[in-house]
Amino acid sequence: MDTELKTRILSAVDAAFDDETAFLSELTAHPSTRGQEQSAQDFMAAALDERGYEVDRWQIDVEKIRDMPGFSPVMGDYEDAVNVVGTHRSQSRKGRSLILNGHIDVVPAGPLDMWDAPPFEPHVADGWLYGRGAGDMKAGLVSNLFALDALRKAGFAPGADVFFQSVVEEECTGNGALACLERGYRADAALIPEPFEEKLVDAQLGVVWAQVHLKGLPTHVAYAGTGANAIEAAIPLIEALHGLEERWNAPGYRHGDFAHVHHPINLNIGKIQGGDWASSVPAWCIFDMRIAIYPGQDIAAARAEITETIMDAARNNAFLKNSLPEIVWHGFMAEGYALSDDHSATAKAAIGALEGAHRSVNESDLDRVAITATTDARFFGLYADTPALVYGPRAEAIHGFNERVELESIRRITQSTALFIADWCGLETI
Amino acid sequence: MDTELKTRILSAVDAAFDDETAFLSELTAHPSTRGQEQSAQDFMAAALDERGYEVDRWQIDVEKIRDMPGFSPVMGDYEDAVNVVGTHRSQSRKGRSLILNGHIDVVPAGPLDMWDAPPFEPHVADGWLYGRGAGDMKAGLVSNLFALDALRKAGFAPGADVFFQSVVEEECTGNGALACLERGYRADAALIPEPFEEKLVDAQLGVVWAQVHLKGLPTHVAYAGTGANAIEAAIPLIEALHGLEERWNAPGYRHGDFAHVHHPINLNIGKIQGGDWASSVPAWCIFDMRIAIYPGQDIAAARAEITETIMDAARNNAFLKNSLPEIVWHGFMAEGYALSDDHSATAKAAIGALEGAHRSVNESDLDRVAITATTDARFFGLYADTPALVYGPRAEAIHGFNERVELESIRRITQSTALFIADWCGLETI
Repeated sequence: MDTELKTRILSAVDAAFDDETAFLSELTAHPSTRGQEQSAQDFMAAALDERGYEVDRWQIDVEKIRDMPGFSPVMGDYEDAVNVVGTHRSQSRKGRSLILNGHIDVVPAGPLDMWDAPPFEPHVADGWLYGRGAGDMKAGLVSNLFALDALRKAGFAPGADVFFQSVVEEECTGNGALACLERGYRADAALIPEPFEEKLVDAQLGVVWAQVHLKGLPTHVAYAGTGANAIEAAIPLIEALHGLEERWNAPGYRHGDFAHVHHPINLNIGKIQGGDWASSVPAWCIFDMRIAIYPGQDIAAARAEITETIMDAARNNAFLKNSLPEIVWHGFMAEGYALSDDHSATAKAAIGALEGAHRSVNESDLDRVAITATTDARFFGLYADTPALVYGPRAEAIHGFNERVELESIRRITQSTALFIADWCGLETI
Repeated sequence: MDTELKTRILSAVDAAFDDETAFLSELTAHPSTRGQEQSAQDFMAAALDERGYEVDRWQIDVEKIRDMPGFSPVMGDYEDAVNVVGTHRSQSRKGRSLILNGHIDVVPAGPLDMWDAPPFEPHVADGWLYGRGAGDMKAGLVSNLFALDALRKAGFAPGADVFFQSVVEEECTGNGALACLERGYRADAALIPEPFEEKLVDAQLGVVWAQVHLKGLPTHVAYAGTGANAIEAAIPLIEALHGLEERWNAPGYRHGDFAHVHHPINLNIGKIQGGDWASSVPAWCIFDMRIAIYPGQDIAAARAEITETIMDAARNNAFLKNSLPEIVWHGFMAEGYALSDDHSATAKAAIGALEGAHRSVNESDLDRVAITATTDARFFGLYADTPALVYGPRAEAIHGFNERVELESIRRITQSTALFIADWCGLETI
């Protein structure tokens, strides 16, 4: 790509960057927690439609994806789970096709009094945009859109089909991305601008969620000794799960990309609820856990190990041994994925194109990172033979309070993305 | 009391016992958990009114009781907290006046699937009446009412004023009974038929509730090491509280009536809630605890010891030491009470009258018991100089599943109560 063209594209991103920031702010104001994504998806669909993309908007049908590899079990139906895809159909089809993927769902804000400003009233301060989901990952979604806009403003369209995907369910199952596969969306590569500090994600962990239901034997607490406290029964189970976590962190267990990562496997007891009355021995307790697994680690075996860990601990409890916990598998049942294990020519070419684009914008090499989270990249990489590049802006406190994303970082990612599309897909004049 | 009169009274209880059982069943069908007592109180008020008692029905005013000894702190207002008192005014006033007290509130049913039959659809099987609150303590309330009925059917009314109290808030604060004191209700003795196996309660423990609020430092669980898990932070605090429980159970700490009671002081972690998302390090956790104290144990000192125990444990936690837990004192702040410590002539006389009544019905001596729970008796005994006799039927699984009360036991208690009233208050013909 010649320098003049590059400059034209980079300038087009700059020229629209205030609009991009305003668009991100407006999108972040939609409180698109799981089940509440509709208004944000309406906003995205309208933006795609306005720009002339062919818009596909559909409700996920669990029956259609239930038997596909990568499916994660869900509780309830998907009445409120709507994906949006905007398609650019190339006239020339001379280049390589591309999926630009991002997720619209955000995690809950948590107690509002722990935020310095309301989580769904985004604001800019000192070069950062604050709000729940601003970084994870509405900035990435917006970057994808404005990268395409910049090409257009420079007088071009991608010279291959481009599928802009705004999906739900990334934060709990990935079934939104899976539903895109089921609907037939395929391309030569995928780009997912998750907020990992402008680095290319070499490898990501898998994630398993489980919900553990414990029973107790309720009595009046005056006779607590004759009852069995379901809340306190959770404690040794949690301790046993930490033992599993430590075993999985041991060197012998690790995938190569995580050999030098500090404590890659994290167990999280993320939710708990139990009991009804301070003076009744609680009859029930439910806790939600998340644990990671390595790329290549067999997920059925991992699930069996988790089960065994919980049941072994329960069998040491006088009451639980006769009333074993119930484990409900809902949410993530996600394998790990390592782009670094993809030795195909396509993967090499896609990474090369992204490296070139990154260098043009930053005048430095593209760093790689192995991340201790999961992303929707696994669906493209593992189940559709499509190299998936995870590369997005710098954000802080994702899933925390005062989540924020750095504006200049968004600008650079948008520019790299525009250059990457131009290189990967080629350009055709409009 | 002559034998013929006794027999007449006992027969009157027998004659109405089917009605009494039906009345108890209907009362138990009202799901009078805290805040939901209105329909049950309506039912009681109507029953009192129908019988010609002067009915006083009023909403508890927190401001009027807040500064009284024995007050327990509450969250929110008392818009839905209504007491009912039915008064019998004696014509002759020749005897000693009496408060017949019982509470209408019941504890939550807990998970319905753990009941063999719906908790608020009472049924009788094998001589027991099943249902939440049947034993604790609607059977007692009904026994009070039908004991008075039996006297009337035998042709008499009590020869002194009798105040029939149906109070709320026994299960969490006792502020219902306290509000009766504030309203001016006083008598020479009080009888509370709580379900303690037809024994006279010699001593009862006090109870303190506390709600512990913990904060965490939320992050994406991928970086769990940089966060602080509010749910897991509760674990060492709970362990430290068990340490306090063991210290308080040590022989040196005990009130004499509890010297030989197995493990009188019970700590209960009765409720817990924390976190919003399996994959976010939880930012908050709240647990509700209950612990008992002995009669004579200073409640302010106990509260200070609980606080110190929690704070000491928190100071050992890297995150909590800079973000100490908040302890919310709501619900029970109840002192212990020992009838056995009341050496007044009135107490002696009241106990004597009850012993006589019990012996007439059972042909055996009245056993005494020190209970590891609290009852509203403390208000009468500690703050109104009124001996309070706790003496009620046999129940099982109170605060548990399939709560039940033995019908023959209710019959005996109703008979003893009728004879006790006749003796204590004297009789006047109607």
